[in-house]
Amino acid sequence: MSKAQAAKFISLEGIEGVGKSTNMDYLASLLTKYKKDFIRTREPGGTHIAEAIRHILLQTKDEVLLPKTEILLLYAGRYQHVNHVIKPALENNQWVLCDRFLDATLAYQGGGRQQPLASILQLNDWVLGDFKPNYTIILDAPVEVALTRIQKRKNLDRFEKEDISFFTRIRNQYLALAEREPDRFRIVDASQNLHAVHEQLASIMHEIMQTE
Amino acid sequence: MSKAQAAKFISLEGIEGVGKSTNMDYLASLLTKYKKDFIRTREPGGTHIAEAIRHILLQTKDEVLLPKTEILLLYAGRYQHVNHVIKPALENNQWVLCDRFLDATLAYQGGGRQQPLASILQLNDWVLGDFKPNYTIILDAPVEVALTRIQKRKNLDRFEKEDISFFTRIRNQYLALAEREPDRFRIVDASQNLHAVHEQLASIMHEIMQTE
Repeated sequence: MSKAQAAKFISLEGIEGVGKSTNMDYLASLLTKYKKDFIRTREPGGTHIAEAIRHILLQTKDEVLLPKTEILLLYAGRYQHVNHVIKPALENNQWVLCDRFLDATLAYQGGGRQQPLASILQLNDWVLGDFKPNYTIILDAPVEVALTRIQKRKNLDRFEKEDISFFTRIRNQYLALAEREPDRFRIVDASQNLHAVHEQLASIMHEIMQTE
Repeated sequence: MSKAQAAKFISLEGIEGVGKSTNMDYLASLLTKYKKDFIRTREPGGTHIAEAIRHILLQTKDEVLLPKTEILLLYAGRYQHVNHVIKPALENNQWVLCDRFLDATLAYQGGGRQQPLASILQLNDWVLGDFKPNYTIILDAPVEVALTRIQKRKNLDRFEKEDISFFTRIRNQYLALAEREPDRFRIVDASQNLHAVHEQLASIMHEIMQTE
């Protein structure tokens, strides 16, 4: 059965502090265990040009990077990434494990920055058509829990109320997206300890391995 | 009358070799003669972020910059440029003289690279809505004339047939755009000598000065 199964595109999503990096490692180890040929990539970025675009996105300049510009840049990089990396891998029967993908734009720019979701979806359609991940795993935790973890990591003193409501809108947007496409999304309770999170991920990957 | 006239946004377009730089200087001198406060800018570019995007567009890399990525990057820069430079200038009653604008994307990516025009216009609408220059001056010359000028300038030996047909498609697209919006476009015969071209530009600017 393993040989007949088509390679899948799996994206991992979640707000800061939910343990995305650690759990990307764990998902990769599971794919290795299942003897799947796979690539691991990330957004924004994933190609030379997309990384150059990422650099513009992350730079702090005197000039305000407007939300619509941000969305256009994210999709410019995404188009390179999809066509030069993700689709060729899938056609080569390699699984793709991607740290953030289109749902991040919907959650951050739509939820977080409150850009109209319908408008982002319109651009998404212009750029990607109906291409999307086969599975999207959301690492979900209450914003306070996630932010407390970042505070420890970055030695930040506190988060402003503004940050809390910004990340709450992002989290809620992720959950709303999952509700609209239950076949694609899997939600993992990331507020639990690492062992429990791994168990949930292992169970999801086990289920995915049963599909064609 | 001069005081009551609203500032205008004028773009200058044309293929390589038609004398865009020289004639931008001349248009600027005319605006000075008419005692208009104005800014002079260009695309791609025009803001720090847009110039950083221009850098990505002009860089030659191992990675192919896909036509759709190119269009998204052009519009990302354009959105910054319009909102941080062009609109504020117009609101401040400064005229805007811009070396290339949206019609360059329609002509180069639509005509030259043969991307569907309807698709570019869809993105244009997403990004700019109905914002466009008040006047667009096309410096028009047969492709062979324009390319001969570049050959001299750049000491290039010859142009491939491919280049000729590429620039012919661009020229034809510019002319087709002008036909669709005769109120906005003015076509200048740039195959004539500089004095004759200046006379045409002076006459166009004289006409523009008569409008509200």
